[in-house]
Amino acid sequence: MGVTLSELAVRFGCELVGDPGQVVSSLGTLEKAGPESVSFLANPTYRKHLPGTRAGVVILGKKDLDSCPVAALVCNNPYTVYARVAQLLHPLGTAVAGVHPSAVVESSAKVSDSAQISALAFVGEGAEIGDRVVIGPGSIVEAGARVGADSHLVGRVYLGKRVSVGQRCILHPGSVIGGDGFGLAPDSDGWVKVPQLGSVRLGNDVEIGSNTTVDRGALEDTVLEDDVRLDNQIQIGHNVHIGAHTALAGCAMIAGSTRVGKNCLIAGDVGIAGHLTIADGVTITARTLVNHSITQEGGVYSGALPMDEARNWRRNSARFRDLNQLARTVKKLAKGSAEPEQES
Amino acid sequence: MGVTLSELAVRFGCELVGDPGQVVSSLGTLEKAGPESVSFLANPTYRKHLPGTRAGVVILGKKDLDSCPVAALVCNNPYTVYARVAQLLHPLGTAVAGVHPSAVVESSAKVSDSAQISALAFVGEGAEIGDRVVIGPGSIVEAGARVGADSHLVGRVYLGKRVSVGQRCILHPGSVIGGDGFGLAPDSDGWVKVPQLGSVRLGNDVEIGSNTTVDRGALEDTVLEDDVRLDNQIQIGHNVHIGAHTALAGCAMIAGSTRVGKNCLIAGDVGIAGHLTIADGVTITARTLVNHSITQEGGVYSGALPMDEARNWRRNSARFRDLNQLARTVKKLAKGSAEPEQES
Amino acid sequence: MGVTLSELAVRFGCELVGDPGQVVSSLGTLEKAGPESVSFLANPTYRKHLPGTRAGVVILGKKDLDSCPVAALVCNNPYTVYARVAQLLHPLGTAVAGVHPSAVVESSAKVSDSAQISALAFVGEGAEIGDRVVIGPGSIVEAGARVGADSHLVGRVYLGKRVSVGQRCILHPGSVIGGDGFGLAPDSDGWVKVPQLGSVRLGNDVEIGSNTTVDRGALEDTVLEDDVRLDNQIQIGHNVHIGAHTALAGCAMIAGSTRVGKNCLIAGDVGIAGHLTIADGVTITARTLVNHSITQEGGVYSGALPMDEARNWRRNSARFRDLNQLARTVKKLAKGSAEPEQES
Repeated sequence: MGVTLSELAVRFGCELVGDPGQVVSSLGTLEKAGPESVSFLANPTYRKHLPGTRAGVVILGKKDLDSCPVAALVCNNPYTVYARVAQLLHPLGTAVAGVHPSAVVESSAKVSDSAQISALAFVGEGAEIGDRVVIGPGSIVEAGARVGADSHLVGRVYLGKRVSVGQRCILHPGSVIGGDGFGLAPDSDGWVKVPQLGSVRLGNDVEIGSNTTVDRGALEDTVLEDDVRLDNQIQIGHNVHIGAHTALAGCAMIAGSTRVGKNCLIAGDVGIAGHLTIADGVTITARTLVNHSITQEGGVYSGALPMDEARNWRRNSARFRDLNQLARTVKKLAKGSAEPEQES
Repeated sequence: MGVTLSELAVRFGCELVGDPGQVVSSLGTLEKAGPESVSFLANPTYRKHLPGTRAGVVILGKKDLDSCPVAALVCNNPYTVYARVAQLLHPLGTAVAGVHPSAVVESSAKVSDSAQISALAFVGEGAEIGDRVVIGPGSIVEAGARVGADSHLVGRVYLGKRVSVGQRCILHPGSVIGGDGFGLAPDSDGWVKVPQLGSVRLGNDVEIGSNTTVDRGALEDTVLEDDVRLDNQIQIGHNVHIGAHTALAGCAMIAGSTRVGKNCLIAGDVGIAGHLTIADGVTITARTLVNHSITQEGGVYSGALPMDEARNWRRNSARFRDLNQLARTVKKLAKGSAEPEQES
Repeated sequence: MGVTLSELAVRFGCELVGDPGQVVSSLGTLEKAGPESVSFLANPTYRKHLPGTRAGVVILGKKDLDSCPVAALVCNNPYTVYARVAQLLHPLGTAVAGVHPSAVVESSAKVSDSAQISALAFVGEGAEIGDRVVIGPGSIVEAGARVGADSHLVGRVYLGKRVSVGQRCILHPGSVIGGDGFGLAPDSDGWVKVPQLGSVRLGNDVEIGSNTTVDRGALEDTVLEDDVRLDNQIQIGHNVHIGAHTALAGCAMIAGSTRVGKNCLIAGDVGIAGHLTIADGVTITARTLVNHSITQEGGVYSGALPMDEARNWRRNSARFRDLNQLARTVKKLAKGSAEPEQES
């Protein structure tokens, strides 16, 4: 599929510098793109590749225009425009309507005529599959679960009973939505399992990464609002509530009953303890352990030490065991040194 | 299904304050439960919701009785009694005996007549499936594996060859029991894989969370004793041995050949190095790295720094690189300050 | 299957001390092996079990020969020789040629006559499955993916579209190769997904652990070179490149576009930030957060604090919040104490 530069400029509100009738049909990096490809410059690290690019056209900001040896689409947000152009040239796979003969669809399930149920997929009793939905190969939709229009379960996704998925969601392989939460009560002779009776509700435009798990609620539901984005191998405990547009990077984890605000950015491997509240717009840097609530909207929080050469690290970390004692000594010294000064 | 308050009181040893003939049939939080529901008060955080509750009956401790506006089931351990009531009203799904036509059961497998083999499940040669077992949709039971009576593989569970699962176990979706351990020997031209010849043995009443992995042993077996409880996305290395009733929260990990005692509580994202021994009854708080054995029964151990605002964090963590030097300076200063004192 | 000690000695270049015609057929630990078994001594921790062993033969280094009560295979690298003997006695399962009737192979897929496609597996349009490949039960090979000769997808593995797997690779259950990378561009009304158009290329002899995820590239491919070894639950972001022979232990994670050298050893739960470069031969100890590039070949880096009893830990970690202030105070004190000395 090809598209003219003028069409791209009009659709995405860019200023075109170049031949309006030139056709492009693919995407590439500044270094490797050929004349049939659209490239972009968003990260300044790659500015050095602009003067030598052989791309057909480059999406870039005004200040880089002079260094561009080929056609340019000038805009304020090159990465976002690039994302939209890429979606135009490579649309998310369209549903091929129908049920594969190897798939199993229980009799009381309601499957839209325009939905695709792929090979070896399972759709349980009373489940509802909306228009143009793709249920990828090996996916399991348990009884009573619902998938909204235009959502994609890419492959081997698991939706537990009564889980509800909104429209235009993308669930990647190995993700498990609606497994039991971890509820245990202690008794004299061991653990008593607390039945997990709630479910999970995903809003519209939610994306769930590969092998990510979102537990069902204990009594009420676990909720991810619209446009929440989860990377791979994330763990979301029961009864967590995540506000709209919040994004979590790989291997982050949120323990049960915590409430995260809207528009938060949670970096990789961040851990958030249970029963906390995180305000809107909060940023948490990689690998921070969040052990108390955050009330300051838009705050930025950290908690991971930078690495060091092993030898230095060993020396410094050994001292950590005595940090309290060290601080007490310094306090005493400070008092001691202050006194002579006062006396002199 | 409904049950009278008198039946609940008798079954679970509570004192009933209210109408013995009143019937309840569901569960709810103090805030949202209606008159047909049982609620409970265990976590003091939610005490504020007691006076306004519209639940049919509340399970609570004696000291909260006076504030309860509705019927009450009084006991010493409200959360545990709640768990048991919830199990009564919402029993774990019962097996629907039979093999789904889309399932594959190899000819030499032994499947109990009362077991349920769900859609698109696989049971390999020589595998044994006990009475009333549920093998959920998409689950794979490899050759020679055994599943004890009343155990549930919820869906898409993987059991490797010769893995043995006890009775009344619950394995959640995406869990992998009996993948190879990580055994590599270095050779001049690269790695040599060490065959993983042991297997995995799970005791009775073991629960395994979604996408959790338990590796098979190198020569002998990896063992989880009775009533071990693993949350989601936990990694258990080869030849690990975990004692009865020990519970691990989400994303914890135990490296190979480590032996963990009975009745331990391992919090989320704790990492335990290999070849260690952890005593019985040990508690390890969230995200601690356990790098040596723990011999003290019932000890409590920690190792994660609390987060801070990013600006403060940067300042403090930058100083960590010089902590050893700082400590040496303080030592020198302390000597210096001591000398004048001695001299004076 | 049995083998004589003389055959083992010749094949693996060991000095045999014992009866060349003695036959062994299995493997065991020094403690538990019987006379039909081969054992080994590599880790000094287990030296104490040598004098009492009842193994048929022990693979060991010269210095342990005198303490060995049974036959011995003497060599410089007992663990590696043990690995090779174990591979001889327990070869990785051989493909049973053919397609299981419950498997689904799309018409344009090319499957070698010697390959095994197991129960409930799926092979998509245009996929290519090489000689003697095993596609284990429940595995999914999406359209256009290729699997090289003698590779094993153990069971329930997911290969995304156009993913390429080399020869003799082993992919363990639950692994997902070629899920989408996490690419999002911000727009005024939420996130815009950046299509992930690259793929994943695995070299020869690559091993991928259970529930590990390797994302497809955004524009170009994510690459793991020959003999890269990944343990369980590892996350590899889009466009990462990992050099030959590098091994990562469980739960490690590498963010997008980072380039890791050859022959690196990355321990468990290490996190490597995005867009970095790590030199060849680097060792990173457990749970280190790598937040900048490493240029020093063969360097060793650390970043995790050792745990402590909870009470001590609380005291020390509370002081961390004031570490910068503490350092400033010490600096002032050091100046103060220096001045009198200069003045005296």
